[in-house]
Amino acid sequence: MGPVADTGQMTEAAGVVLDPAIAARLKRNADGLVPAVVQQHDTGRVLMLGWMDDEALRRTLTTRRGTYWSRSRQEYWAKGETSGHVQRVVEVRLDCDGDTILVAVDQTGPACHTGADTCFDADVLLTKDPSADPAGGVDG
Amino acid sequence: MGPVADTGQMTEAAGVVLDPAIAARLKRNADGLVPAVVQQHDTGRVLMLGWMDDEALRRTLTTRRGTYWSRSRQEYWAKGETSGHVQRVVEVRLDCDGDTILVAVDQTGPACHTGADTCFDADVLLTKDPSADPAGGVDG
Repeated sequence: MGPVADTGQMTEAAGVVLDPAIAARLKRNADGLVPAVVQQHDTGRVLMLGWMDDEALRRTLTTRRGTYWSRSRQEYWAKGETSGHVQRVVEVRLDCDGDTILVAVDQTGPACHTGADTCFDADVLLTKDPSADPAGGVDG
Repeated sequence: MGPVADTGQMTEAAGVVLDPAIAARLKRNADGLVPAVVQQHDTGRVLMLGWMDDEALRRTLTTRRGTYWSRSRQEYWAKGETSGHVQRVVEVRLDCDGDTILVAVDQTGPACHTGADTCFDADVLLTKDPSADPAGGVDG
C-alpha cells in the first residue's frame, strides 16, 4: 500500500482511500453507511437525503460531485450521472457525533427523480398552525 | 380498541396511534425508525438529524414539539424537555419514497447539546472551492 494523502487538498489520484482523520470520526450504521442531508447552498432548501459509505464520501470530497451509495441498487451513484441533474458540492460538514453528513450543493435541475425540485415537495403531513402566530404570513 | 382518528386535526387525546394513512406511507429501517431532518423554518439552517418511530412522529404532529426516539437511551425525547431548548414545529413533510421526514421548526436556543446553534457547526470537511466561482463571495 502506498502512502495516504491526509491534506484537505487531496486530488482524486491521491485520495485512494478516505482521509483516515475523517474516517476515524465517522459513526456508521450496521451497513457501514451514514445519512447525508443534501441542501441547496444558497436557498437552504433541503433537497434529499442520501447515504454514504467511506468511498462515497471520498468521491464526494475529491470530485465535488454529490455521490451516494444506492441501497436499492447496491452501487455508487453520482447524482445526475444519467439525468444530468448533477450536484456541485459547495461545502461538506459532519455533525457533533459523527453520524450525519451535511452537504451543501448547487443543484442543476430538479433534485428528485420524480422531477420535483426536492424530494420533500409532494407530501405535507402538517402545516403551520395559524393560531400560533397571530401576525401571520411571516414564516418562510 | 376504540376508533382511530384520521383527520389532520387530531388532538393529543384523540391521536392514540399515528394516523394509519400516514403510517402506511412510512418506510422504516430494521429498527422501525425513520430519519428526521430538522431545519430552522425561516433561515433554512439544518439544525440536527433525529430519528422517529411512529409514536415519535405522532407526538410531533399532535403536540407540535419536536419529539424523537433516542437510540442511545432507548426512550422518547421531546427536544428541550430538560434544557428548555424546545422546537415548535411549523411544518412536517415526508419525502418521495417515504423514508425521510423533514421537520421545519422554530428552535428556542441552541439546537445542539454541545451548546452550538446547530449540530453541524464544528466539523467542516470541505469548504467552497474559490476557483469554481471567479466572482467569489456570493454563496450563502
